[in-house]
Amino acid sequence: MIQRRKIVLKRRPDGIPAPDDFELIHEPLPSPRKGEFLIAHDYIGLSPAARIRMDDRESYAPPLALGEVIYGGIAGHVIASDHPEYSVGDTVTAVGGWQSHSISDGRGVERWDMATGTLPNALGLYGFSGNTAYAGLLGVARIVAGDTVVVSAASGAVGSAACQIARILGCRVVGIAGSAEKCAYVRDVLGADACIDRNAPDFDAQLATACPDGIDVNFENVGGKTRDAVLQHMNRFGRVVVCGLIAEYNALGASTGPSWFRILHQRLRVEGFLLSDYRHLRADFLRDMKRWHDAGQITYREDIRDGLETTPAVFADMLSGRNFGKTIIRV
Amino acid sequence: MIQRRKIVLKRRPDGIPAPDDFELIHEPLPSPRKGEFLIAHDYIGLSPAARIRMDDRESYAPPLALGEVIYGGIAGHVIASDHPEYSVGDTVTAVGGWQSHSISDGRGVERWDMATGTLPNALGLYGFSGNTAYAGLLGVARIVAGDTVVVSAASGAVGSAACQIARILGCRVVGIAGSAEKCAYVRDVLGADACIDRNAPDFDAQLATACPDGIDVNFENVGGKTRDAVLQHMNRFGRVVVCGLIAEYNALGASTGPSWFRILHQRLRVEGFLLSDYRHLRADFLRDMKRWHDAGQITYREDIRDGLETTPAVFADMLSGRNFGKTIIRV
Repeated sequence: MIQRRKIVLKRRPDGIPAPDDFELIHEPLPSPRKGEFLIAHDYIGLSPAARIRMDDRESYAPPLALGEVIYGGIAGHVIASDHPEYSVGDTVTAVGGWQSHSISDGRGVERWDMATGTLPNALGLYGFSGNTAYAGLLGVARIVAGDTVVVSAASGAVGSAACQIARILGCRVVGIAGSAEKCAYVRDVLGADACIDRNAPDFDAQLATACPDGIDVNFENVGGKTRDAVLQHMNRFGRVVVCGLIAEYNALGASTGPSWFRILHQRLRVEGFLLSDYRHLRADFLRDMKRWHDAGQITYREDIRDGLETTPAVFADMLSGRNFGKTIIRV
Repeated sequence: MIQRRKIVLKRRPDGIPAPDDFELIHEPLPSPRKGEFLIAHDYIGLSPAARIRMDDRESYAPPLALGEVIYGGIAGHVIASDHPEYSVGDTVTAVGGWQSHSISDGRGVERWDMATGTLPNALGLYGFSGNTAYAGLLGVARIVAGDTVVVSAASGAVGSAACQIARILGCRVVGIAGSAEKCAYVRDVLGADACIDRNAPDFDAQLATACPDGIDVNFENVGGKTRDAVLQHMNRFGRVVVCGLIAEYNALGASTGPSWFRILHQRLRVEGFLLSDYRHLRADFLRDMKRWHDAGQITYREDIRDGLETTPAVFADMLSGRNFGKTIIRV
């Protein structure tokens, strides 16, 4: 008999989450009631932002309660339905969480057309990650051809899409990544004009060399010291898209930021954003991304790991930078 | 025989400027050449931003050279002219600096109509300070009636105008100022809904009480700890107008800022601005301010001190908060 397996928060992590912070629970498979359907999760997309809600701290969403399933996007298929619009076999994406199955009434669910791409594609390239890159660059930064765009965590799920979208739209693209291997990928595969190892002792000098005309847009996924260095090279009227602060998620209470003096005298616009504020760009994004993907202008790396039970360890790896591309669990 | 007296930078200040950082120089009065005119400075408006250019540091304008006249707005009258558009007796405002006279070719000069107000009015209420408040609130923050607007240095030259403009436009206004006397003025005379002493031990609790619906706009003139506290109360999609950082000007190299986490999860827009980017709002500002002023809706306090030679000491007082209103030197 099939059971639902789910990973819940057992204890609030201190720093990088440890295996004991989570618990794998088995329980009977629920049945959909009227107006509901049951989704079998084939893949779960991991996102660093899930770390935020493990703290007992105000953020864009309430903290997870202890015992609650961890937040996360999923791609799967409907296996039972008493909902007029969803039938068994439909492929969907949803915010289903770190579990094998979920019940839905359709809210937050999007149908996935397998002609567009695979289910992992639905989670990364065409999902939260790719769409976040698109909305940040077009909706927040409003990039124009000729801008110098710096992207941190450039080989990651969001960063790798951001690098390529900015390149396709005619920007000079400079990535920042966590190893020589990742930097080579960002340059050679993603087509960035340069990529700098964030651990390089001469990081600042390399950044200056890579951005001879200064920086117009910083697509910030990381925070911390590299963010502070990038800020010092921003041009007048530069835009900073605050998309993520992964370097700080494990110790948010202790994190600080750079002086605002550069923001003042260069008249920078530093703006936080969440994809959910840019739903109006969803159709444009799907159209553009499909066109670019079909034309071979976009490549996308998926780091697929097997087994729901491995999720906490894979998540910790991702927060430590020991992943490469969009990190996905095959359930 | 009339001489030109000018105050030049002799040594770069360390912290609050000391008298020995400046030198008062007497020299022969220059004569205008063809296309120039000579302005006698009746009043000099002091601005905290002048401190920035005394450091050898990149900012919105190049650092002052040693021996150069200190940057500052002036109001005065033409006493000699070989310029087709300016005649002896014309009243003008200009960026003439800390000196008794200046030669101009008309660039950066604005005629001042004495029917609008006094020469000190031209420097404060209708000058850089009032116009900065207007452009920051309307051009950058784009306030709407019902917004809760926090203004730091609320009794100051920019802050006092910002409090009143926001009040007139239907916002809830909460000031922050440096003493009980200044707070009483902000509440009782400027008409703010509340004003909090930045030195109060329960500052944060008072701020929360004064902003029961959170903060939509922070008009930031000060920086430092109060800025960090205000950020923590900002509402989703809040706007921070980074107009000044007076608490940090004396030690810019050492200053840091708050974590960007709040910017991220509340989707704040933090934007630096300079009045010179909003010249297109100048005519609207003059029209609105005159209307409000004539209708008795705006009051404006000028802290006028006598004698060019006192300027360095008055400037140091201003940076220490020992001024009250727009600080002006009667030359």
